[in-house]
Amino acid sequence: MPVLKNDKSNPEQVKKGLKRKVIHLENLMSAVLDFSGGPWTEPEPAHSHPHEQTCYIAEGEILFFCEGETEQHLKAGDMFYVSSGKEHNIQLLTKKARLIDSFSPIRNDLLKK
Amino acid sequence: MPVLKNDKSNPEQVKKGLKRKVIHLENLMSAVLDFSGGPWTEPEPAHSHPHEQTCYIAEGEILFFCEGETEQHLKAGDMFYVSSGKEHNIQLLTKKARLIDSFSPIRNDLLKK
Repeated sequence: MPVLKNDKSNPEQVKKGLKRKVIHLENLMSAVLDFSGGPWTEPEPAHSHPHEQTCYIAEGEILFFCEGETEQHLKAGDMFYVSSGKEHNIQLLTKKARLIDSFSPIRNDLLKK
Repeated sequence: MPVLKNDKSNPEQVKKGLKRKVIHLENLMSAVLDFSGGPWTEPEPAHSHPHEQTCYIAEGEILFFCEGETEQHLKAGDMFYVSSGKEHNIQLLTKKARLIDSFSPIRNDLLKK
């Protein structure tokens, strides 16, 4: 069935304070990221990947940092995008946040082993 | 700036009861769809496209219909996906709903003229 129901899904505990659920097709992946344990006193380490990325902030508030851009204060309802190869990271400003990330091509490193 | 802030954006009025905001890169597009005027007494017409699609239900409840699958009752927090070429459609069950659609490749038909 091509659905992932929130109350019947089993998120992966990626690390302390981060749970993730992933769906994907051949060239498109979307992930629900549930952060807890905020606010953070500093941003996560910056990272990059060749995959294009979009993000919808479903809950909470974050700072979004992207290479070559001024930092952005984003909250529920806002979106950001990341071009291929651009360094980026976030800082959680609220106790919890839910981000909806999409990637193309799919990120094999996010698939459950 | 690679962000779209909810309270500073200017959604496109696609038709009565549907506003849409779109961001995209080269091969990835995400759109916020705000439906109003529900609940609907029947589904919208089924449609298909070669683009792969994922969807996160940010608000509201819908029925999701996909070719070859049983209908699914989905609510805020749930996701669905649509393979290339599959007929699909939705029916709004609540007065309003917000869907976050992602597509790869990008849908040129959703770009503002």
